[in-house]
Amino acid sequence: MASPVLPSSGVLSPLGLDAVRPAPGFWGDRVALNREVTVAHCLEWMEREGWIGNFRGERPRRGREFSDSEIYKLLEAMAWADHPALPELAETVARAQESDGYLNTRWSGERYTDLEWGHELYCYGHLIQAGVARLRTHGEDRLTEVARRAADHVCDRFMAGTRTCGHPVIEMALVELYRCTGAERYLEMARRFVERRGLPALADIPFGRAYFQDDVPVRQARVLRGHAVRALYLASGAVDVAVETGDQELLKAVEAQWERTIATRTHLTGGMGSRHSDESFGDDFELPPDRAYSETCAGIALIMLAHRLLLATGEVRYAEAAERVMFNILATGVAVDGRSFFYANPLQVRVPAAPREGVNQAAEGGLRSPWFAVSCCPNNIARTLASLAAYLATADGTGVRLHHYTPGEIRHGGLVLRVETGYPWSGGVTVRVVEGGSGRISLRVPAWASGARVARVPAERSGTSASWGPAEPGYAVLDGEWRPGDMIRLELPMAPRWTFPDRRIDALRGCAAVERGPLVYCAESVAGEPPLDDIAVPVGPPAEREYGHVVEVPAEIVPATGSAWPYGPARPYAQAGERVTLRLLPYHRWGNRGPATMRVWLPLSDRHPRRR
Amino acid sequence: MASPVLPSSGVLSPLGLDAVRPAPGFWGDRVALNREVTVAHCLEWMEREGWIGNFRGERPRRGREFSDSEIYKLLEAMAWADHPALPELAETVARAQESDGYLNTRWSGERYTDLEWGHELYCYGHLIQAGVARLRTHGEDRLTEVARRAADHVCDRFMAGTRTCGHPVIEMALVELYRCTGAERYLEMARRFVERRGLPALADIPFGRAYFQDDVPVRQARVLRGHAVRALYLASGAVDVAVETGDQELLKAVEAQWERTIATRTHLTGGMGSRHSDESFGDDFELPPDRAYSETCAGIALIMLAHRLLLATGEVRYAEAAERVMFNILATGVAVDGRSFFYANPLQVRVPAAPREGVNQAAEGGLRSPWFAVSCCPNNIARTLASLAAYLATADGTGVRLHHYTPGEIRHGGLVLRVETGYPWSGGVTVRVVEGGSGRISLRVPAWASGARVARVPAERSGTSASWGPAEPGYAVLDGEWRPGDMIRLELPMAPRWTFPDRRIDALRGCAAVERGPLVYCAESVAGEPPLDDIAVPVGPPAEREYGHVVEVPAEIVPATGSAWPYGPARPYAQAGERVTLRLLPYHRWGNRGPATMRVWLPLSDRHPRRR
Repeated sequence: MASPVLPSSGVLSPLGLDAVRPAPGFWGDRVALNREVTVAHCLEWMEREGWIGNFRGERPRRGREFSDSEIYKLLEAMAWADHPALPELAETVARAQESDGYLNTRWSGERYTDLEWGHELYCYGHLIQAGVARLRTHGEDRLTEVARRAADHVCDRFMAGTRTCGHPVIEMALVELYRCTGAERYLEMARRFVERRGLPALADIPFGRAYFQDDVPVRQARVLRGHAVRALYLASGAVDVAVETGDQELLKAVEAQWERTIATRTHLTGGMGSRHSDESFGDDFELPPDRAYSETCAGIALIMLAHRLLLATGEVRYAEAAERVMFNILATGVAVDGRSFFYANPLQVRVPAAPREGVNQAAEGGLRSPWFAVSCCPNNIARTLASLAAYLATADGTGVRLHHYTPGEIRHGGLVLRVETGYPWSGGVTVRVVEGGSGRISLRVPAWASGARVARVPAERSGTSASWGPAEPGYAVLDGEWRPGDMIRLELPMAPRWTFPDRRIDALRGCAAVERGPLVYCAESVAGEPPLDDIAVPVGPPAEREYGHVVEVPAEIVPATGSAWPYGPARPYAQAGERVTLRLLPYHRWGNRGPATMRVWLPLSDRHPRRR
Repeated sequence: MASPVLPSSGVLSPLGLDAVRPAPGFWGDRVALNREVTVAHCLEWMEREGWIGNFRGERPRRGREFSDSEIYKLLEAMAWADHPALPELAETVARAQESDGYLNTRWSGERYTDLEWGHELYCYGHLIQAGVARLRTHGEDRLTEVARRAADHVCDRFMAGTRTCGHPVIEMALVELYRCTGAERYLEMARRFVERRGLPALADIPFGRAYFQDDVPVRQARVLRGHAVRALYLASGAVDVAVETGDQELLKAVEAQWERTIATRTHLTGGMGSRHSDESFGDDFELPPDRAYSETCAGIALIMLAHRLLLATGEVRYAEAAERVMFNILATGVAVDGRSFFYANPLQVRVPAAPREGVNQAAEGGLRSPWFAVSCCPNNIARTLASLAAYLATADGTGVRLHHYTPGEIRHGGLVLRVETGYPWSGGVTVRVVEGGSGRISLRVPAWASGARVARVPAERSGTSASWGPAEPGYAVLDGEWRPGDMIRLELPMAPRWTFPDRRIDALRGCAAVERGPLVYCAESVAGEPPLDDIAVPVGPPAEREYGHVVEVPAEIVPATGSAWPYGPARPYAQAGERVTLRLLPYHRWGNRGPATMRVWLPLSDRHPRRR
């Protein structure tokens, strides 16, 4: 089955890319843009930057020490998208592989002598994931042969011993290869890599061992910590190992880490990671909007972890978190033209970014860049959107579950369902039965959708008014026999709402944000209008405009007064302000109009009644 | 004269270490501890870490690429303190110098091929500063010969061309060497280094050219930016060049940069720098308390710049800023035993730092460390405290000015003054005339000291009640003839006060801090008591306890309630809290009792009247 995660057991099982086919709509448009534009864009840049040439032996070698992994991520995207350029690129890669399976265009010294920073196993991880994608969409070929030889080489070299790689990803890759091939040594190798971590398995580094999760064994850790992408990839691999080995203790440990991480270390957008210096989470409640690192890749890694936990447990909270990240990080990470990308996703930008030419050497947010010196995010977006359909719906013994709503078709058993919706711009979802059958159909009702309602409309009664019942947050479950023309209608209330932060998030004190459905909104200011430093909101009712693309809130502009020293005896917000209407746009749409300032969290006006 | 800065012109002129002699008291105690403990501590660690051995040719070379500069900073401290171990260490350094004056223990390839990161000229800068200190305290010797040969080598090599060093400091060093020797080529070399910057003079780097102030010429820049220490050292060198060349435009440019930097990029403590990733200032109003980098060395650099601007202009604001940094950064940077140091000085610590053994590989705040892999701060503290007396008072044509109050003796002309004070624990300052003479005596009145008063008490009237007059912020000026036994008494109101942040500092919204005199206060919690995550303050009147060591404020404890997701429709601080008294201590004293949490900025309680 064409799915990036295929556990052998679990409460839910995936539906593959053949079974879930997005049509034009929020996600379908993005999947198509990705396939038609972004994949070629990435291919072109990696050729231009010489990262593909590295495999041809062109010298001097170009790119960072882990640039091979970028080619592999793109190969994975091409595999899911059945891209015609895959065989040629795979052949180029294959020719660089050594006779014993070793493959790395950078390493010239003794192999595996710098596991902390060398990224050799990390690169294999992405190569193996590309191979798995190819096996599941196409079958054996040159790419899958290369991936399998690399995996065998890793097992030969690392099955004994105590070491692992500074950057996790090979753990989940090996489990998936085991799932594809049945070769148990891959699972065992993955298990050992997971268990070795924190014993410790690596040398100490200036950032400290928590940076690469080598401070505490996975099953003893209480929260995700250190480098966010590494932490989330490792947790994903640990879930894969736990599921395949029946290790409930390990699964529960990751679930507990997830809970605390979501409760204390997640930005409103679902973004993860607060520190630029080591791309790490930071402490509990250290969630600055301006310096939020919130790397696009960390968002993608969260989707991967959430999906694994959803499949293992069936618990709706995992789908809920994945949706938040999909709409507010994944959709934000790529521009509307599919050709530029955010690396960091801050929730506030005070100074418009200066446009720059060519490759971005830094990871700052502010303006999307066509390419980066460390260009993990574009390829990660490409492979995620190429396989996104596999995350939208699942099956279990009783029927099918819809976790995410976008127009398209879903097949399971004999049942063919067509989803029609303008979500997230509107809250109505219609599931139309195209080919009938029996089984349960479950529809996710988000936690914010209080007052949601659901109706079953048999084919013979379509056209008459539906008989609505309440749909509590969780899953609305509809059992029975389905005939062509039957419909399920779900109505999710989409009124914009004010959201306040936990008071322990110091950086957000005295602020509120607007959300609407799964979307986080923000104020964007191009050319200084409106002046976002001077805006305060009294928390009047937000109002929807233009079918949810824009939300308006009452606000006031309180011009800042300069002073020689920014601390003193006077309380802020003492002056009266001019009353205005502030237009907010979905966070994922910001930054498409050129350099701008932006803020998600809006300061509360002190001079207005603060309780409704 | 034994002073680290000796301009040939300016509104004020320095008094050297011979003229200003601190006695036991706030600064005198620290100067003595530094001379008796810290200098030897640094010497011992640099021997242990092999950084001194590098000069003996011991291999492999140890330490970072700029570790030579640490030996030079310590040599400067030893010169000011007339330390007996100086000649031996200077001899070790001298033997490593090449015949043409080149001196660097690290560089083995072609010289000056990596000016961006190589730090070769930076190291000379500190060597020359050490040589200047030795010339002014002792006269010519081996150290001064080495420094002068290095300076000549730099002039030979760099007078022509367009290049400079990634890390400024040589600019001010060369100007001081010119001031010592009269050799104009040093001034000209310094002038060229200042003027080359921003043309640009260096290659671009991933952090961007603003990192080392090569984005804009010094005289066109509008604010200090990039790496804070580099920015402040460069600005100091630019002031030195401006003063010696009579370049008013350049001086005004730095003054304007100072103004905006103080108004928008300075933490309450006077600390500078918000970003860990590149040790940079960050944007205007980006002043997070928890991630404040506020490097100890940046504080020291600010003292250096402030002193230069004070000498050039006589404007009180520069002394005011220097005092803030002296009490809240310099005094914080070193532990009460003189043997451990802060690198970063955050204003909030949420998680107690884990104690660690030996050399700290990171720059985090939280616990002071005996040594760092990059150990700039201990040596910088050592040289600054060793020369601190030279910053306390100045002279001009009319008499003497006291900028900073600590017990001690000041000599100028025939006048000998003894300062008696418990400042900053109490606000009374007595200046007693020991040997008489004529001339103006000016006493600084800080901006916070509204209601200050001053009295002149002639010898014959001592014992009777003084006749007080008001002392406005600025300088209280007293002219006349002074006879032994005459006294000036200054009373500075020291009641603790609440301070609020400019509302554009997003990270501090809804908070207030307590200051008392020049001291910033903080709440410290050892072993979780009190729970600083749960404290809110209604801004009742703060009360002094134990002569200002401790300040108490009314507060309430509102236990945090856990939730699975830290954002939602409920406003924070809805619950009632238990009323308690919160003890605050001076920020510079925090972290001396082991791992602890700490916060300077205290959340305002929402449930209490918020206006007095």
